Amino acid sequence: MVPVTSSTQPLTDLAPDQLAERLSAAQADYQDLQAKGLKLDLTRGKPGADQLDLSQGLLGLPTTNKDRSGADVRNYGGLEGLAEMREIFADLLSVDTARVIAGGNSSLTMMYQVVTWLLSHGGPDSPRPWAQEDTVKFVCPVPGYDRHFTMLAELGIEMVTVPMREDGPDVRAVRALVADDPQVKGMWLVPTYANPTGSVTSTEVAAELMAMPTAAPDFRILWDNAYAVHHLTDVETKSADALGLASASGNPNRPIMFASTSKITFAGAGVAALAASPENKEWFLKRLSYASIGPDKVNQLRHVEFFGDAEGIRAHMRKHRDLIAPKFAAVEDALTARLDGLGIATWSRPIGGYFVDLNVLDGTAARVVQLAKEAGIALTPAGSAFPHGDDPDDRNIRLAPTFPALAEVETAMAGVAVCVELAAAEKLAADG
Amino acid sequence: MVPVTSSTQPLTDLAPDQLAERLSAAQADYQDLQAKGLKLDLTRGKPGADQLDLSQGLLGLPTTNKDRSGADVRNYGGLEGLAEMREIFADLLSVDTARVIAGGNSSLTMMYQVVTWLLSHGGPDSPRPWAQEDTVKFVCPVPGYDRHFTMLAELGIEMVTVPMREDGPDVRAVRALVADDPQVKGMWLVPTYANPTGSVTSTEVAAELMAMPTAAPDFRILWDNAYAVHHLTDVETKSADALGLASASGNPNRPIMFASTSKITFAGAGVAALAASPENKEWFLKRLSYASIGPDKVNQLRHVEFFGDAEGIRAHMRKHRDLIAPKFAAVEDALTARLDGLGIATWSRPIGGYFVDLNVLDGTAARVVQLAKEAGIALTPAGSAFPHGDDPDDRNIRLAPTFPALAEVETAMAGVAVCVELAAAEKLAADG
Repeated sequence: MVPVTSSTQPLTDLAPDQLAERLSAAQADYQDLQAKGLKLDLTRGKPGADQLDLSQGLLGLPTTNKDRSGADVRNYGGLEGLAEMREIFADLLSVDTARVIAGGNSSLTMMYQVVTWLLSHGGPDSPRPWAQEDTVKFVCPVPGYDRHFTMLAELGIEMVTVPMREDGPDVRAVRALVADDPQVKGMWLVPTYANPTGSVTSTEVAAELMAMPTAAPDFRILWDNAYAVHHLTDVETKSADALGLASASGNPNRPIMFASTSKITFAGAGVAALAASPENKEWFLKRLSYASIGPDKVNQLRHVEFFGDAEGIRAHMRKHRDLIAPKFAAVEDALTARLDGLGIATWSRPIGGYFVDLNVLDGTAARVVQLAKEAGIALTPAGSAFPHGDDPDDRNIRLAPTFPALAEVETAMAGVAVCVELAAAEKLAADG
Repeated sequence: MVPVTSSTQPLTDLAPDQLAERLSAAQADYQDLQAKGLKLDLTRGKPGADQLDLSQGLLGLPTTNKDRSGADVRNYGGLEGLAEMREIFADLLSVDTARVIAGGNSSLTMMYQVVTWLLSHGGPDSPRPWAQEDTVKFVCPVPGYDRHFTMLAELGIEMVTVPMREDGPDVRAVRALVADDPQVKGMWLVPTYANPTGSVTSTEVAAELMAMPTAAPDFRILWDNAYAVHHLTDVETKSADALGLASASGNPNRPIMFASTSKITFAGAGVAALAASPENKEWFLKRLSYASIGPDKVNQLRHVEFFGDAEGIRAHMRKHRDLIAPKFAAVEDALTARLDGLGIATWSRPIGGYFVDLNVLDGTAARVVQLAKEAGIALTPAGSAFPHGDDPDDRNIRLAPTFPALAEVETAMAGVAVCVELAAAEKLAADG
């Protein structure tokens, strides 16, 4: 194992000779790390095989061909998904079943559809298709989910950032962006256990976001509740009621909510869902009707039979928690053991979701990722939690500890901590 | 049963009093038909429950979590689909596996993606995104598939029609449309057992389509081979080699091929595929990477295990044939029994696919559908096989006999024949 440093004096306070000593010790530790010949991967928020095994029972299901209404799930049709699947999502998301559409295997696909259809057709309250505007901009809380940002870049949408905080996005910053600029048409938000910060958007923040004045009459908040039930402790935080708050504020069409079972059952073979106002839902289904005859209802029924109801999913998520909470604890332990008190890193202690958000000394994130790579530890590229991969402070690193085995997380994170210290010591020494 | 007429003299040759007598007999038969209180549906090309039952074994599969490469099919990733699934499609479509992408549950969705991405980004050989052209037009062989046409209308693409013939679209008409007009960017084609005519596009016609000069440098033929292996006789017609012909003509990017197992296994829960040139495939996967993390690989492996290989699918399709060929024979028998020789209807005798294409006396198709409806027999709306639902001759009706039970097909089609004759007699009598 990598030796734990005895001193916890901030590196920034060290005299030059102390710093040189520290750098040299870190270099020696890094050489030891490289000598291990590791090959570990903390890049993606993927469930581990043991988590997937929890849903193995899906593979013998369904035991019947008919849904509750008597329709044959094997045949075409049923664009909004099975009523019983929609009910389960409605319960998990605390919305009316009537608001929910159950779809295919990817909520990302549903988000992409929403954005492309806003561009090509506009929403029910749009003066014109978004593509006919000179410019379309989205508010992006950062750090955030890389696929949200790459999607917007692909579709020619500009991104303006606001800080993500403990209780959600910085509302004052959001207000300032949306109040006067009608080109600001939308906003991403992962409300619960945000990717990667783990933040939970409070009801107060959500209420402000749903009520705030926007220059665009058709402003949308894409409420990606990917981790709604992905608790890491026995505090099972409830998401803010986006649809209810929006409706109460007279902006019922503002939020569109997304969720999926990707990190509940099988990451590639789950069921996705969308929930929205009646107008938004009708609009979405109308567009969808030209692109699909219906979702995979067999897979929906498979999920319904497996879980029975939303409580079945909640119980199932506790089994996930038991498997992955120790991995998050290992991240915390490794970072604390080496970096606590050194003044060169801060990190999140998430109570849900899939990530630990690590902020290293400004200007060293890319170096940390490079060092880790050269020691056989793959990390998400520095900056990937920012639009266009550009972290202006070069300090943010997203850690994804669920996929590797616990022992691998321990080994990898001890190594990452060495890289964080080495990069910091290098920089401080160079800056003199 | 509806009595079969004894005369086969063309109705158009009858003297006014003979015609009046004939009208009155048809009216009486129609009253008898209405008295039956039928409730039958020949509207959609859906497999029957007995056909779906052929694939019931899918529901216990897969028996392993790993694909051939060792990847866990339950997790994220694998955007182009499982190699072993792609191999099966490649064999069925007679293309290289390297050309194939295996996707989700809907080839319609893949077609929609191709068209929207051509609009938003253009193809690899496009001077600019199609959406930046003043007008985009598609050549549509008619009668054709209604969902092809409604998709184009939704996306703001104009449609110009050409006649569909026994050996495929009228190539001379297609050539005339595409040669000089760079706004004509694409064309639909169901090459094998076309919806609804049952036509099979010959190699000669396909070769001309792939080689013909087009004013648009990025002309696309969307080659929807939905019924490639859906033979109704023991003649297992092979589709023309669109990719090979296009490549040989120096137009490798012209065709994009689609197929699915929707009418092989489960209509809502099958696997779709796309095959195209390397450039087109790379272009599609690049766009797709922003909208999806990967297809449902569990369902792909389920299909691979169930069939083993392409020969497994061919053998499976013979079981489908045994179930549905009698229904097509019932359509033929009912139409022949009542309408043969009357000079008021012609119809296809398909050797594959899902439809019978019925052409009634000009100006009477809508009336036939209305009469049938009032007798409890639901038919596809007249004109639905034409862009914007507009059949200029009001004569085409698409019959879909697979979903109802055989006895229902017999009853419904005897009724349809009555309606065809009654509508014709009404019109001829009124025209005097």
